Amino acid sequence: MSFSNEAILLIHCEDKPGIIAAVTNYILKHGGNILDLDQHTDSEKQRFYMRVSWDLQDFDIPEEEIETHIEEELGDSFNMNWKLHFSKKRQKLAIFVSKQQHCLYDILARWQTKEWEVDIPLIISNHEYAGETAEKFGIEFHHLPISKENKKEQEAEQVGLLKEKEIDLIVLARYMQILSSDFIDEFRNQIINIHHSFLPAFPGARPYHSAYERGVKIIGATSHYVTEDLDEGPIIEQDIVHVTHRDDVDSLVRKGRDLETLVLSRAVWKHIQRKTLVTANRTIIFN
Amino acid sequence: MSFSNEAILLIHCEDKPGIIAAVTNYILKHGGNILDLDQHTDSEKQRFYMRVSWDLQDFDIPEEEIETHIEEELGDSFNMNWKLHFSKKRQKLAIFVSKQQHCLYDILARWQTKEWEVDIPLIISNHEYAGETAEKFGIEFHHLPISKENKKEQEAEQVGLLKEKEIDLIVLARYMQILSSDFIDEFRNQIINIHHSFLPAFPGARPYHSAYERGVKIIGATSHYVTEDLDEGPIIEQDIVHVTHRDDVDSLVRKGRDLETLVLSRAVWKHIQRKTLVTANRTIIFN
Amino acid sequence: MSFSNEAILLIHCEDKPGIIAAVTNYILKHGGNILDLDQHTDSEKQRFYMRVSWDLQDFDIPEEEIETHIEEELGDSFNMNWKLHFSKKRQKLAIFVSKQQHCLYDILARWQTKEWEVDIPLIISNHEYAGETAEKFGIEFHHLPISKENKKEQEAEQVGLLKEKEIDLIVLARYMQILSSDFIDEFRNQIINIHHSFLPAFPGARPYHSAYERGVKIIGATSHYVTEDLDEGPIIEQDIVHVTHRDDVDSLVRKGRDLETLVLSRAVWKHIQRKTLVTANRTIIFN
Amino acid sequence: MSFSNEAILLIHCEDKPGIIAAVTNYILKHGGNILDLDQHTDSEKQRFYMRVSWDLQDFDIPEEEIETHIEEELGDSFNMNWKLHFSKKRQKLAIFVSKQQHCLYDILARWQTKEWEVDIPLIISNHEYAGETAEKFGIEFHHLPISKENKKEQEAEQVGLLKEKEIDLIVLARYMQILSSDFIDEFRNQIINIHHSFLPAFPGARPYHSAYERGVKIIGATSHYVTEDLDEGPIIEQDIVHVTHRDDVDSLVRKGRDLETLVLSRAVWKHIQRKTLVTANRTIIFN
Repeated sequence: MSFSNEAILLIHCEDKPGIIAAVTNYILKHGGNILDLDQHTDSEKQRFYMRVSWDLQDFDIPEEEIETHIEEELGDSFNMNWKLHFSKKRQKLAIFVSKQQHCLYDILARWQTKEWEVDIPLIISNHEYAGETAEKFGIEFHHLPISKENKKEQEAEQVGLLKEKEIDLIVLARYMQILSSDFIDEFRNQIINIHHSFLPAFPGARPYHSAYERGVKIIGATSHYVTEDLDEGPIIEQDIVHVTHRDDVDSLVRKGRDLETLVLSRAVWKHIQRKTLVTANRTIIFN
Repeated sequence: MSFSNEAILLIHCEDKPGIIAAVTNYILKHGGNILDLDQHTDSEKQRFYMRVSWDLQDFDIPEEEIETHIEEELGDSFNMNWKLHFSKKRQKLAIFVSKQQHCLYDILARWQTKEWEVDIPLIISNHEYAGETAEKFGIEFHHLPISKENKKEQEAEQVGLLKEKEIDLIVLARYMQILSSDFIDEFRNQIINIHHSFLPAFPGARPYHSAYERGVKIIGATSHYVTEDLDEGPIIEQDIVHVTHRDDVDSLVRKGRDLETLVLSRAVWKHIQRKTLVTANRTIIFN
Repeated sequence: MSFSNEAILLIHCEDKPGIIAAVTNYILKHGGNILDLDQHTDSEKQRFYMRVSWDLQDFDIPEEEIETHIEEELGDSFNMNWKLHFSKKRQKLAIFVSKQQHCLYDILARWQTKEWEVDIPLIISNHEYAGETAEKFGIEFHHLPISKENKKEQEAEQVGLLKEKEIDLIVLARYMQILSSDFIDEFRNQIINIHHSFLPAFPGARPYHSAYERGVKIIGATSHYVTEDLDEGPIIEQDIVHVTHRDDVDSLVRKGRDLETLVLSRAVWKHIQRKTLVTANRTIIFN
Repeated sequence: MSFSNEAILLIHCEDKPGIIAAVTNYILKHGGNILDLDQHTDSEKQRFYMRVSWDLQDFDIPEEEIETHIEEELGDSFNMNWKLHFSKKRQKLAIFVSKQQHCLYDILARWQTKEWEVDIPLIISNHEYAGETAEKFGIEFHHLPISKENKKEQEAEQVGLLKEKEIDLIVLARYMQILSSDFIDEFRNQIINIHHSFLPAFPGARPYHSAYERGVKIIGATSHYVTEDLDEGPIIEQDIVHVTHRDDVDSLVRKGRDLETLVLSRAVWKHIQRKTLVTANRTIIFN
C-alpha cells in the first residue's frame, strides 16, 4: 500500500517451458523488484496465465517505453498476449442504473470513503430516479430512456458520453436494458453486469419469481463481463444466501439485494486491481 | 433429548382463524405439554402449515388411539391433512448406491456412532463395489445390476426387499439409476436423492463437467424428494462451495464430494426428525 | 407486506402448560387473525418465549386499549413479561459514528431507498467527518467531541437530543467511544453496536491487528446490544469471512468493512421488525 | 493428476530481488517443466515464500541427487530454508483418537475410497472404543490409556510405534490428551489437531458449553499444528456454522461434529499435498 508506482503485467499464451524464467529475468535485469507473481497453467488446454507486478522505483526503463521494450524482449519469443498497467493510474468508472439504487449507493459509498481510488464522472439511467442521488454526490447524470425506436440513437449518445469522459469501466448496477452488440464490441471486457441469480440457473427476467416457484433453498447473484449472449458472459464472482419456505418473493428480493451489492462490488474491485483476465468464456482471477 | 416418548403432529390445510388455538387446546385438555411448535402461513396461497410436538407422559389418550381421536376432534373441523409420528419409533433406512461410496460411508458412520438413532438393514447397488463395505458394517447387501431389459424385474426385487425389511426411507446415496414411476409411486416422499449441482442448474448427467465448461465460481449440491420428473422433485437442502479457475473437473469432483455428503446427510436428518413436509413441489422445513 | 396495521406481541415467562392455547384463544376470541407465531421453550431453564402477530382489521379491541386488556386477560394468569408493538409505527433511529463511514452510508442507503421504513432524524459524532454526509442526506448532525473532562456533559447533551427527537433505537455505526453506565441504563436494549471481530475473540481495540498477529484464517464481526460490560452484551448477529496469509492488516480491515456493514444492518433490521428479545445475556431471534 | 513423478520445492527466506528468476532458471536449465508456482512476499517482515513444482520426466538430475544439487546451486546464494518432496511418495499417517469417532471415520473413508493416496498403518487411543473400528478397517490398534503416572512411559511407547511405522503425519482426530513438549519436539510441524471452536475464542476444555453460555450466533472449528502452547499453534484451517437460540449444548455438539470433520480433513489434505509452510506462528497455505 505504498504510494510509489508499480507495473502490472498480465500475460496469457501457449504453455512452454521457460516463460516464468524469461519474464522474471527481464524484470530483474532492469532493476525491478517483483512485488507479486501469480501464475496458472491450464494443463488440459496447454495455456499459460500470469500476473506479475514490480516496483518501478529502480526500474531502468522509462514508463512510456516499457510497452515497446516488453514487446521486443519478451512478446515475440513466446507469442504472448499481454497487457501492461500502472497502479498509479486512476481508473474512470461510469455507472448505468435503472430503478433500483442499492448497488449504485454501495459503489458511491466506496468511492466517497476512498475505499476505491477511482473517478466516477458519469451516471446514466433509463429512468429519472437516480438523478437526485447523482446530484447529491455531485456526479453528472444523463437520463436516457430507451425504447425500441430510439435505442440506436440513445446508445450512440451513451457511447459519446463514455468516450468524452474517457471511461475505463462501465458498471451495470442493476441496469435493466440489453446492450446492443455494437455497444458491447466497443467496450469488450470493460462492462461488468450483476445478474440476480446463480447463473446458469434463472437467466433473463424475474429470477426471484422463478426461484420462488422452484422452491430453491438458496438464491444467488452473479457478476460477469457482458457479451452478446445475454447472461452468458465470463463469470467474475458468484455467491449465494440460504433461504427457507418462509421467504416469499418480496423476501427473496430483499435478501438478494445485499448479495447483488456485494457480488458486484467484489467483481469491480478485482477488475480495478487488474486481477482479472478473460480467456474464451471464463475468467482467471489472480490473487 | 430425554428418553420419554413424544408425539409429533404435522398439519397442512387451508388457512382459517383458530387452527393453532384448536390444536393447542386439544393437547392441553388431554394433559400434553407442548415441547415445540412451529407454524407457517403462506399468505399468498392461503395455506397453513404446522409441526407441534408434545410430551406423552401425562397425555390421557393411549398412543394407539391418538390417531382416531385427532381425526374426530380436529381433523374434521378444519379439513386438515395431518400425520402423526412417535419419536421413539426407530426408522428403517435402505441405502442405494452405485460406484462412489463417500455418501455411503458418511451415513454408515453416523449410524455406527449413534449420531442417528436409526436402523439400516439394507444396502442395494447396481455395482459390486459397495459389497465389501456392507460386509464390514454387517449389513445385508444386494447386487442388482440394471439394464434396459431387466429393469422391471430388478425393481420388483428391490420393492420386495424394501417391503420385507419394512423400510421407511430410501436414501439414494449417489445411485446413478433412474427409478420408474411405479417404484416412486410406491414410496412417495420416502425417497431422498442427492444431485451434484445447485438445481435447477446442471440437471442430468455430468454436472461438474458442465460447471467447468460454463466457468462458474461456485459448485453446489441439492438433496430432494424423488418424483417422476428427474431432478425436479421438492428440494430439501442445498449448499455450495466456492471454486476458482484453478479447479479442473477432477478438482470440482473432489470438492463436490464433501458437499454432496453434507447436503444429503442434512436432508436425511431433517426427514428423520419429522421436520419436513411436502406441499405441491416445495418443502416446508420446520425448526 | 400489506398496508394494514398488525399487532406484535413479544412474551417471555416461566414455562407452563397452556400459554400458547391461552394467547391464541385470546386473539381468536376478539377477531384477530394470526399472521405469524414463533415460539421457543428453553427446557433447561424452563423458560418460554413467543412472538405472535395478528391482523388488527377485525380485532374488536381498540388499539389504545389492547395493552390494558392483555394485562387483565393474560398477563396476570401466567406472570408474563410482555411487550406490544404496532407494525405501522415508524421507528426513529439515531446514528452514532466516528471516523469510518461505511456503516453509516449503508444505513442511509437503506433508508433512502425505502428498504427500511424508518425515520433517521439525528446523526451524532465525536468527529467532524460525517457532517458533510449528514448534510448531503439532509439529516441533523451534531459534532460532540468526547474527552475525559467533558464526557459527562457531552453525554447529557446526547441524551437531551435523543429524548427531544424521541429516538427508539441508537445505532453505533463504528462509534469508537465507550458509553457510560448511566447512558446505557437510559436506553436499555435500545443501543446496537457493531464490533469488528467474532466475539468473544479479540474484544476491545484493534481486533484486526490481533487477528493478524494470531494468524487466523477467518475474521468476523458481531452486532450486540450494548451493556455495561464492554463487548459482552447479548449478541444479535455474527458472521465471518475467510482470509489467507496474503491478507495483511490493511486487507483484513478492507474485508472486514463489508462484514461489519452487513452484520450491523442485519441486526438493526431484526430489531426494527420486533424480532429480538433479550433474556439474561442472550438474544432470542424470532423467524 | 498424471502418474509421473513431480518434485515439490518449498522455500522461505529473506526477500531479495532475483529469487524467482534464479529458481525458475535452475529448473529450466535442467529440463524441468514447471507445473505450478505460487509465491508470496510478506512486505512488512521482508520474507519470501514459494512453492514450485515441476515434472521430473525430462529433468536431468537423478532424484537422489537433487537435494545436494539444489543446496549447491541455489541454497547458498539466497540463504534459503527449503525442503524438497516427491509427489509419488505415499505418506504414512497415524491417527490418535479418544472416544468420539466421527473424525476417525471420515479419515478412514477418504483412505478407503482412495480420495487420499496415503497409508494409515496405525491408530492409537487412550480408550478402547475405536478398537472395533480399527479392526473393521484392518488397521493396527493400540490402546494406551494415559494417567498422570504413566504418561511418560505411554508416550515413549507411542513414539516407538510411530518410529517403527515411519509415520510422516500424526492426526489428532479428537484426541483429548495433552502431548508433552518432548513428544511435540520429536514431530515438529507433523502433528495436526482439531479444536472445536474458532480459536482464539474458547480454548481448552468444553468450548461448546462456553459458546452456549456466551450466547454466540456462530460456532467454529480450528485445525492447527500442535505446539507446546495448548491451542495456540499455527492455524491451518478454520470454519464456522451459524447457530440460533434454538441450539442447546447437545445441538451445538451435533452441528460442531460435521464442522470438525471437514476442517480437520481439509487441513490434512493441504499438508499431504505439501501446500503448507509454517513460519513463526502462522501458516502459509499455497494454492
